[in-house]
Amino acid sequence: MNQIKHIVKGIKPLSQHIMTLAKEKEDNLTKPLESLGRLEHIAVTIAGIKGNVTPTLEKKAVFVFAGDHKVVHEEGISSAPIDVTAQMVTNFTNGGAAVNVLADRIGAEVKIVDMGVVKPYENREHVINKFIKPGADNIMRGPAMTYSEAVESVLSGYEVISDYNKKKGLDIFCIGEMGIGNTTPSSAIYSLYTKLQPSEVTGPGAGIDKTILLKKINIIEKSIKKNNPDVSDPIDVLAKVGGLEIGGMLGAIIAGASLGIPIVVDGFIATAAAVLAINLSSNIEKYIFLSHKSAEWGFGHVISLFEKSPILDLGLRLGEGSGALLSMDIICASCDLLNNMATFTEASVIDVKKI
Amino acid sequence: MNQIKHIVKGIKPLSQHIMTLAKEKEDNLTKPLESLGRLEHIAVTIAGIKGNVTPTLEKKAVFVFAGDHKVVHEEGISSAPIDVTAQMVTNFTNGGAAVNVLADRIGAEVKIVDMGVVKPYENREHVINKFIKPGADNIMRGPAMTYSEAVESVLSGYEVISDYNKKKGLDIFCIGEMGIGNTTPSSAIYSLYTKLQPSEVTGPGAGIDKTILLKKINIIEKSIKKNNPDVSDPIDVLAKVGGLEIGGMLGAIIAGASLGIPIVVDGFIATAAAVLAINLSSNIEKYIFLSHKSAEWGFGHVISLFEKSPILDLGLRLGEGSGALLSMDIICASCDLLNNMATFTEASVIDVKKI
Repeated sequence: MNQIKHIVKGIKPLSQHIMTLAKEKEDNLTKPLESLGRLEHIAVTIAGIKGNVTPTLEKKAVFVFAGDHKVVHEEGISSAPIDVTAQMVTNFTNGGAAVNVLADRIGAEVKIVDMGVVKPYENREHVINKFIKPGADNIMRGPAMTYSEAVESVLSGYEVISDYNKKKGLDIFCIGEMGIGNTTPSSAIYSLYTKLQPSEVTGPGAGIDKTILLKKINIIEKSIKKNNPDVSDPIDVLAKVGGLEIGGMLGAIIAGASLGIPIVVDGFIATAAAVLAINLSSNIEKYIFLSHKSAEWGFGHVISLFEKSPILDLGLRLGEGSGALLSMDIICASCDLLNNMATFTEASVIDVKKI
Repeated sequence: MNQIKHIVKGIKPLSQHIMTLAKEKEDNLTKPLESLGRLEHIAVTIAGIKGNVTPTLEKKAVFVFAGDHKVVHEEGISSAPIDVTAQMVTNFTNGGAAVNVLADRIGAEVKIVDMGVVKPYENREHVINKFIKPGADNIMRGPAMTYSEAVESVLSGYEVISDYNKKKGLDIFCIGEMGIGNTTPSSAIYSLYTKLQPSEVTGPGAGIDKTILLKKINIIEKSIKKNNPDVSDPIDVLAKVGGLEIGGMLGAIIAGASLGIPIVVDGFIATAAAVLAINLSSNIEKYIFLSHKSAEWGFGHVISLFEKSPILDLGLRLGEGSGALLSMDIICASCDLLNNMATFTEASVIDVKKI
């Protein structure tokens, strides 16, 4: 835990000086003042993160953290069997999933991280191995993992990003996940930080009927009661009602913020890791972009925990990093505009602000 | 007018058969059922437009229709002088505007169409010349153009698209515009078709203060009263209170629908052309994608005239086709997913629907 604290302590606020310069640059581009709306705020924030008035976002990747959840398997509250996590990991390594298609079209690399997949899968050599144990334990019976396993999951996620950055360089990245049943721990985390009842932040996930949804809500209520997580310590929450892949994503977010790399957070489950992150340090939030408004019930309440609203609202609820990739491309577009548009002077266009 | 009527009469409904097949394909891809939300509906619609279950969207272009408006010049209700339309056309041909940056990054060609730009500009050889007259006339004093000029503007826009399609092929295209003051005729059109007061659908455009905004609203009210457009005839509305570039965009939309090419409509002004289009024939609407929710006041009322809501909501109010280009890329992504994701059978992933 000391190591996490040390890393988090080193996270700097964004460069206000660079952001002021970037805003001035935006205001001199050939367009009505602030007419690019959110794109201008996004580009200025990226400039502040990178410490560069003309930030280029070329080296892009999506990290898909995979892990299983014994609670959904043992209590029967998921639409899909536990085998599907491993099957989808094989699908990722074969390039057949949504995340692969969306990454390919924008030149982002796809990296799969095994944090705790129960069943075997193919092409193991193409997966980053950060396996901690075969799935988070049944949170209705006790904690998902020990405190030290939780710390390990976070440091593993941190290493994935910092190692990739050292080897290949990384200008921006997406975090996504795969784990049958992982809306359950996410809803538990949301209930704790929104202070809302589990029923208000729990939806049908990939697709369950009303009866099973009620059972799911009941299990989340019991899990919180049984484990009594300490919300002032996000690592305790992660250990008690979280998941291995959520820990990995939390570590990846911390790495992005500490290394000055913008993080694009996917939907319902990835955002649970982001909620833990901003409760570790408010400095982290500036580095985070929520990518899309998940269609999973209760996500509206979750958004209110953040300063910035999600970039897209397309009714997505797939995960994997799919929404994050779509959104990352819009972030890249905002920087292309900042970098490549002509100024009023360059283009000899009358700047009405100065008339 | 007979020629427009003839073209519009030939516009076919989408292929229900192909859409059913595309939906079946979506449902067999490795993802929870309908978890790609709006992207699935978009891809299925594109399939229906193209009559192809695996529609490829490779040949892309954005058409920027430019024209001036004497009303804003003569009555002093715009933030920018009339010179800026021509200056921005030069900027487009030099590649320095937002539309150029956004088109370049997704491989779309930018074509500028001069429908009636008053002032001179550079690189005239790179502009498609469909000049009808130097700007729409002052709508507070009389109609923007004669009925036959309105027909000519629409047929010109039609020709731009059909000629480009013949020469180079066109899988999908964006329509955008440039014309200082063209929020004024757009708001007049919106007032007529929403049956709301001009004050409810009129905003500050590129940026005017409250006093000038009230004057702008007053001029729109007077223009409608003076010209008394016949809402049952969109060409009459175009002639009375519209604009040359709006006529061009209307023609482009008709061309897209008649040639089976999806049309991505930019913001406040381009959508005014779309409102005229759907009032010419309800068949046209299926071919149209509203790209983004313009930040210009009153656009919320305008959206309710359409079946489909805009794809993006980023607070944009720049025009040129900027929002349409961002949105077109998401449409392309939806088709890439439909075409390139593995099915459950191909990937050996359990299809929970079939358990």
